[in-house]
Amino acid sequence: MAVYTEVTDEALAEFLQSYPLGRLVAFRGIAEGVENSNFSLRTEAGDFILTLYEKRVDPADLPWFLGLMEHLAGRGVPCPLPVRGKDGAALRRLAGRHAAITTFLPGIWPRRPQIRHCGPLGAALAALHRAGEDYAPVRPNALGPPAWGPLLARSLPRADGVSPGLGAELRAAHDSILAGWPQDLPRGHIHADLFPDNVFFLEERISGLIDFYFAATDLYAYDLAVCLNAWCFEADFSFNVTKGRALLGAYAAARPLSKAEVAALPVLCQGAALRFLLTRLHDWLNTQEGALVTPKDPRDYLRRLRFHLGLEDGALYGL
Amino acid sequence: MAVYTEVTDEALAEFLQSYPLGRLVAFRGIAEGVENSNFSLRTEAGDFILTLYEKRVDPADLPWFLGLMEHLAGRGVPCPLPVRGKDGAALRRLAGRHAAITTFLPGIWPRRPQIRHCGPLGAALAALHRAGEDYAPVRPNALGPPAWGPLLARSLPRADGVSPGLGAELRAAHDSILAGWPQDLPRGHIHADLFPDNVFFLEERISGLIDFYFAATDLYAYDLAVCLNAWCFEADFSFNVTKGRALLGAYAAARPLSKAEVAALPVLCQGAALRFLLTRLHDWLNTQEGALVTPKDPRDYLRRLRFHLGLEDGALYGL
Repeated sequence: MAVYTEVTDEALAEFLQSYPLGRLVAFRGIAEGVENSNFSLRTEAGDFILTLYEKRVDPADLPWFLGLMEHLAGRGVPCPLPVRGKDGAALRRLAGRHAAITTFLPGIWPRRPQIRHCGPLGAALAALHRAGEDYAPVRPNALGPPAWGPLLARSLPRADGVSPGLGAELRAAHDSILAGWPQDLPRGHIHADLFPDNVFFLEERISGLIDFYFAATDLYAYDLAVCLNAWCFEADFSFNVTKGRALLGAYAAARPLSKAEVAALPVLCQGAALRFLLTRLHDWLNTQEGALVTPKDPRDYLRRLRFHLGLEDGALYGL
Repeated sequence: MAVYTEVTDEALAEFLQSYPLGRLVAFRGIAEGVENSNFSLRTEAGDFILTLYEKRVDPADLPWFLGLMEHLAGRGVPCPLPVRGKDGAALRRLAGRHAAITTFLPGIWPRRPQIRHCGPLGAALAALHRAGEDYAPVRPNALGPPAWGPLLARSLPRADGVSPGLGAELRAAHDSILAGWPQDLPRGHIHADLFPDNVFFLEERISGLIDFYFAATDLYAYDLAVCLNAWCFEADFSFNVTKGRALLGAYAAARPLSKAEVAALPVLCQGAALRFLLTRLHDWLNTQEGALVTPKDPRDYLRRLRFHLGLEDGALYGL
């Protein structure tokens, strides 16, 4: 939960003069979100979200992210639409940060994902992938497989302090995953971080997909693997194959999966688990005292990783 | 900034069935607020705030707080109006906490209070005091002068670690303030915590007074003293007498101050500074690692306390 940067009322009023949104009506910090500072913004023109991009986001990537969101929103994906200022620009500066206003999306994210959420999620993920097909710019996945080795190396000296033997286990998993990583699966733009807190529902319908700031150009099936990790495990770390079936079935109905994609699901799921394990481990080892955000326990993803390492057949996820 | 308690979508949907507000449209945690968990809640009936009362609030006081807000809102004070459920009750339980829904108030709180804010603030404070005159229930101020000695005693052993000599300085100030504390000034219901983040403005007009969970029955002029401390010092801890004049003048225009109240302003301001210094010192010394809220530096109020201790004439605040 986080608002890292304070915005004065004067600076906000001046910032808003660049937009055709009328006068300010309300402004509150949003507790959700870890990477950036987000605010609810109401003006005479309606409700919006103001995002200040904090240090983890590379400013050079912002036009790609905002362009992707505009592209997807224009094709019916319920994602935030960047609001352009009177000068046509969607990106400007506020309080020493890069900043953008996007449209407000209704809905609530599911705190405890249920089977009924997984079908709509799979359909929405496939629709996102298809809608992005004709967005030409490309962004390599900065947290894809080539990043995992260096990330691991930075945490390795202290990994065993988190869990005995963790360092050796992760090194072995990393080497095995990279050796088995598929090279020629269908690729395109993926969300890469579609956790439950990034998916809003209204009743049983998806009303919003948010937080595209890890989006990248990578294997479509890897996005599915992220979702299998984030949505289909129970609190006791057991894999709920009924959720997996709902997710994969709805996805494949909208974007059929090739045999190669299904066969690669175990290693893709291992990779996705490793990616979140490594970033959480890094944050766990490097969180300052007094930090605004409590780091997440990396061991949750160790449990997932071990599950995936024991699977050889992608159909076991529910196909 | 804080959301301490997670609310599942299922529990929220069930909770909302007790209210005549239609279906849920949106739900986000609010970053602002230290004591309780607050959420923006949108339903088919409009915008609301959901508050979950955390451990610092005595549940026995909640009916008094909610009753006061309902009373004040009914008399035109722009404060949150508690929403009654279908059963007539404004207070019920959610996620293991006492919880209430109140109306949403527009506006933005001033991050850097200016002179122009202080007049409207004074007028609003006087209006709040007058509107509360006929609210019969009484709540003793749990953080009034009798509480300061015990609070100080708990921090005294470690006070000098925060600032050398702090313990002795606070003990002397405490004894002097309590010896000079006025007994027979006009009293009634006060907000007791009207800091800038509890006052919303739309342009130059006050659109909301929020967070009544320190409100109590105490000296009216003590509420003014809290505001003089919270609004009229600059970032370098100098007292801005033009702000003081604006605040006191607008207040007195709506609720004239007696000579005794003016004469008591220095000791009331000393007491208000001591009260916030002591609670901040306590939080400073007792904040757990990994806490969601960064404690505020108690020394900011030591600087204010020293200023007030040097004043003998209440007119010097700007009257």
